[in-house]
Amino acid sequence: MFSDRIAATPQQAATTWAPAFAFVSGCAAAVAAALLSWRRPQPAAATPKASWAEDGLLSALAITGIQELATPPDVVGPAADPNSIHRRMELMLRKGQDKICRAVEASDGGAKFRSDAWALPNGAGGGISCVLADGKVWEKAGCNLSVIRGKMPETALSAATEKADVYLKNMNHKKGEPVPFFVASLSCVMHPRDPFCPTMHFNYRYFELDENNWWFAGGTDITPAYVDEADMKHFHGTYKKICDKHDKNFYAKFKKNADEYFMIKHRGETRGLGGIFFDDLNDRSKEDLFKFAEECLMAVAEAYVPIVDRHKNDKFTEEQKHWQLIRRGRYAEFNMIYDRGTIFGLKAGGRIESIMMTIPLMACWEYNHSPAPGSPEEEALQAFKTPRNWV
Amino acid sequence: MFSDRIAATPQQAATTWAPAFAFVSGCAAAVAAALLSWRRPQPAAATPKASWAEDGLLSALAITGIQELATPPDVVGPAADPNSIHRRMELMLRKGQDKICRAVEASDGGAKFRSDAWALPNGAGGGISCVLADGKVWEKAGCNLSVIRGKMPETALSAATEKADVYLKNMNHKKGEPVPFFVASLSCVMHPRDPFCPTMHFNYRYFELDENNWWFAGGTDITPAYVDEADMKHFHGTYKKICDKHDKNFYAKFKKNADEYFMIKHRGETRGLGGIFFDDLNDRSKEDLFKFAEECLMAVAEAYVPIVDRHKNDKFTEEQKHWQLIRRGRYAEFNMIYDRGTIFGLKAGGRIESIMMTIPLMACWEYNHSPAPGSPEEEALQAFKTPRNWV
Repeated sequence: MFSDRIAATPQQAATTWAPAFAFVSGCAAAVAAALLSWRRPQPAAATPKASWAEDGLLSALAITGIQELATPPDVVGPAADPNSIHRRMELMLRKGQDKICRAVEASDGGAKFRSDAWALPNGAGGGISCVLADGKVWEKAGCNLSVIRGKMPETALSAATEKADVYLKNMNHKKGEPVPFFVASLSCVMHPRDPFCPTMHFNYRYFELDENNWWFAGGTDITPAYVDEADMKHFHGTYKKICDKHDKNFYAKFKKNADEYFMIKHRGETRGLGGIFFDDLNDRSKEDLFKFAEECLMAVAEAYVPIVDRHKNDKFTEEQKHWQLIRRGRYAEFNMIYDRGTIFGLKAGGRIESIMMTIPLMACWEYNHSPAPGSPEEEALQAFKTPRNWV
Repeated sequence: MFSDRIAATPQQAATTWAPAFAFVSGCAAAVAAALLSWRRPQPAAATPKASWAEDGLLSALAITGIQELATPPDVVGPAADPNSIHRRMELMLRKGQDKICRAVEASDGGAKFRSDAWALPNGAGGGISCVLADGKVWEKAGCNLSVIRGKMPETALSAATEKADVYLKNMNHKKGEPVPFFVASLSCVMHPRDPFCPTMHFNYRYFELDENNWWFAGGTDITPAYVDEADMKHFHGTYKKICDKHDKNFYAKFKKNADEYFMIKHRGETRGLGGIFFDDLNDRSKEDLFKFAEECLMAVAEAYVPIVDRHKNDKFTEEQKHWQLIRRGRYAEFNMIYDRGTIFGLKAGGRIESIMMTIPLMACWEYNHSPAPGSPEEEALQAFKTPRNWV
């Protein structure tokens, strides 16, 4: 609608923009653009090369020889009994991937997820990557399934779990030998545009070294730029309800895990407003834990999407967009400095685009930024500094 | 000049922007803003709290009890003989700080550096922080002097130098005891606005553990978004000339050091187009090395500012601004994932704003971004992937 204000060609633009740019201020460069109803001409984009990793970790597990598939196969994981936990986990995660992607597309009302399937050689499994870029409501969103079997170095296991030593001892593992594993994992990050719409991240996975050494891990967490108590009650409440059904201690424990894990230690503030986070969960039957993980995953859409729907048309000022970009700087900071999966994945040679997908499209670092006392931005900062109980 | 296009108040803005925002595309949000000749209303900014660190490292050296000073004192470092290397180094760095800041202000033609002086308790030294934000030509620039004496844990020494073991052995250091040190350091990062103006970083420092265990370290490196051979010949040529005066092997060695140090390993590409980088330099007399460091520092203005002057009014398209933001994402990535000083400084409790000052104001991560074959962006990417010789 403002397209008449913009030079139509690069040549025309070149003569117009440079002088005007001299005084554009700080992050405002990003913020002010909110004024413009207009799409950047798309650069010649490379085809996504598939191979999604759950937050980068899986990409480090010596995945090589990835082949892209024209269409997603019925089964992406390695050969297995159709009733096995391996196959059932794949089906469950795929159902969850489909559910959240469809819900997000419906909420966006425009953009669609692009699906890319990939396979490892020798029937070692594969995955399906779903990416939505440049939507109306969502700026950058990805949801990625990996179901693979293989062997990994001991160091990779240490990055995958804090209990590597315990498992290896249980297995009578010979030091220095590679560790066999199976993993089925679904990982997702959604970054909306409107500063009143929170970012959401989840990851659910089943990890197995051998018949007796396995665990479930995962969680869903939310990262708003502003505190909306009703939203947080809804999000945390949804997960508390599921947790309580399975164990009255789960929610308190897993909420605390999330507050601790997503802490940006050097700032003494959390990335967002938490959720649940669990790892090495194997203290009860596989069936019970499978059900717990399934319910958590299937609840993502109802826990998250209504919050975005409620705010996706919220009007916002330039200051509010600016604050969102500052918080996205924090998001990038956490992921690049602390997130185990990101760092390990990058250093171990994982697929970069899959790992960096979690980083917001745009982020801002302003020297000495500090919200005004009593402002909603300061209220949010306080909530990041001192995790609150929402339910 | 486009101010009539923008809602004048947040209230007015709120009713105008939200619907328009829905279709703003990707990084374009930042890019398109280049159209707007307008300044964001400044938020209630906190007073800079002083205590600059050379890329974060010094802040980790157990600096506590920092006091802000109303005006920069004649001497910021700890008490010393006026003819000592300690005092001479401080004077030299201060002169260098003054020189580059004045040259940058003159080139900017508008913004001024803001100076903040700070002191440690008990005469342990202090520093002067110079920050320029939101200039016409420069978006974010900082130049920070620290001159301090103290004791640090052995782990901090290992982060400060790769030869910690050698020095500690030379000193007959008792394991576990804190290590006495003196350091005088000047550190600087300048991020201009125009995508044809490169970012520049330098750090020069003198480190001393005791009379026999000392070294010089530092370097200047340049990070353009586009390859301009004449610029690179000028920048590298300036440093080659200085290096050659002191040692015919210096330039080749220090250029290689820079190409290796500033490598973003997971991408197989350098942060920029290098320069010189040296560490633990103590293979000749202190006087010779002092002179070398002095000439390198004093040459920053002539090596860098003319390049910015040549390009600061260059017209650019939105695609070119977009590419700069993508490269700034790489800059942030390098600093947060690999830069020793940044990571160590943050984890050891350094002053965050000082450390994060090196991160660009704005950065962009676009899924699967890949420059078009044969484009100037691809030429630059090739130069990042395969370091070239410029002189």
